Amino acid sequence: MHTLDGYCFEDLAVGQSAEFGKTITDADIVLFAGISGDTNPLHLNDEYARQTMFKGRIAHGMLSAGLISTVFGTRLPGPGCIYVSQSLRFKAPVRVGETALARVEVTELVPEKRRAVFRTTVTVGATVVVDGEATLMVPSRG
Amino acid sequence: MHTLDGYCFEDLAVGQSAEFGKTITDADIVLFAGISGDTNPLHLNDEYARQTMFKGRIAHGMLSAGLISTVFGTRLPGPGCIYVSQSLRFKAPVRVGETALARVEVTELVPEKRRAVFRTTVTVGATVVVDGEATLMVPSRG
Amino acid sequence: MHTLDGYCFEDLAVGQSAEFGKTITDADIVLFAGISGDTNPLHLNDEYARQTMFKGRIAHGMLSAGLISTVFGTRLPGPGCIYVSQSLRFKAPVRVGETALARVEVTELVPEKRRAVFRTTVTVGATVVVDGEATLMVPSRG
Amino acid sequence: MHTLDGYCFEDLAVGQSAEFGKTITDADIVLFAGISGDTNPLHLNDEYARQTMFKGRIAHGMLSAGLISTVFGTRLPGPGCIYVSQSLRFKAPVRVGETALARVEVTELVPEKRRAVFRTTVTVGATVVVDGEATLMVPSRG
Repeated sequence: MHTLDGYCFEDLAVGQSAEFGKTITDADIVLFAGISGDTNPLHLNDEYARQTMFKGRIAHGMLSAGLISTVFGTRLPGPGCIYVSQSLRFKAPVRVGETALARVEVTELVPEKRRAVFRTTVTVGATVVVDGEATLMVPSRG
Repeated sequence: MHTLDGYCFEDLAVGQSAEFGKTITDADIVLFAGISGDTNPLHLNDEYARQTMFKGRIAHGMLSAGLISTVFGTRLPGPGCIYVSQSLRFKAPVRVGETALARVEVTELVPEKRRAVFRTTVTVGATVVVDGEATLMVPSRG
Repeated sequence: MHTLDGYCFEDLAVGQSAEFGKTITDADIVLFAGISGDTNPLHLNDEYARQTMFKGRIAHGMLSAGLISTVFGTRLPGPGCIYVSQSLRFKAPVRVGETALARVEVTELVPEKRRAVFRTTVTVGATVVVDGEATLMVPSRG
Repeated sequence: MHTLDGYCFEDLAVGQSAEFGKTITDADIVLFAGISGDTNPLHLNDEYARQTMFKGRIAHGMLSAGLISTVFGTRLPGPGCIYVSQSLRFKAPVRVGETALARVEVTELVPEKRRAVFRTTVTVGATVVVDGEATLMVPSRG
């Protein structure tokens, strides 16, 4: 393993968790529009967005979902893991100025495949905005 | 419905599809790192990445996955739809300079809930890099 | 023609129009300053801008004008068209938080040159902030 | 006048000129796509762009045109001037990695209206990529 690598499979235990929080700004939304090409007026056009059920602009759902990947890639398990799959349920919007907190928690370990299953949630305050489950492959210490 | 809105539920049919393609550049990776906070060296550090099984830097998986949301938000069904859920299987990496093509295809329509189910894939050339399924709620014409 | 292409010349008619609206945020101004190098304090420095006739910071005129090109490149005529010329009259400022709406309308078609002439306006509410005229070359279906 | 202001009308003379050059990178194109919403695949999708007459991705024309405004807003006449109008003829593409040089030159002065007329060009090497004319209102020393 590389010294930059995160946890080995053997270091993981069911119940371990980690978080990453970020305030979502107008800059994040404009930049996400540029890199994704997603110019849906719900994200970019206040006058349009105010007429929708959301009553104003909201961040791209995938921008909030991206924070989950941040926890995996930087904290738990950290560099060296392989992102196998992710399910996402978008439950509530994130607005400009809100702080989204992504949390991942180990729910299952499959040693023969070195796979770890995580419950993944993104919250704003007490509100769950995205939840789902992820599977990662984690390098063995051996 | 607003004039900026995309397809109504009544306009959708099983088999309809739409695409969005984008070349992934270093700028996309740096900006995605900035807005997500995902600073995994696999994306940002060539020297680290060359020592991994990927033999070089790769784009964040969620960056490729974001292109799926672009098709939904701008083409099919377009503005006005609500992203309910998305599953993602990350099958192959995307490297700097590669062009990722996201494609969505209607596979099921549930009129009583105005829900449309889509098969979603992201490809680079003939290689599937992400696949999965999405459910969206689409406004009714009525 | 490519499947991503927009309208062909033969599909255009005098009077056709399309729009794109976007809320102008501080992020847009900072990013436009970065990519253009236009660091005029009228856009970046509140203390300076408050002492001018504008009584506060305003967006770069070319940022609003860029929304016209967005309509051409993504909606009418869409990909495949060639931007030949554009005239711009800057008539009023756009401030942070305002939503600018670009509108293009076909005013003349020149079949022998496959050229389309458009009246182009950008408005904030009822106020015209930029107007002008554009000429584009549009691919033939043949 | 404010100490940050640029030239006064009385300081201008026909033939005066100023320039601003900038290398256009992938980052500029992605950011311009985000702030303008212009996701034309000619700018973002190499596979599409290679099949066009341009044989590859090119920068948004309005991104090059924006450099003209940079000269006005920062050098000649500099802060304090009012952008009245600009005409643009797009004559050749700008590609990633090329350095675009915007140049403005005073061609006419209209003292009773404090208006200055400029010839404006953007070049890449010896190739003119954008040319046109601009009118600005410039504050009087009095």
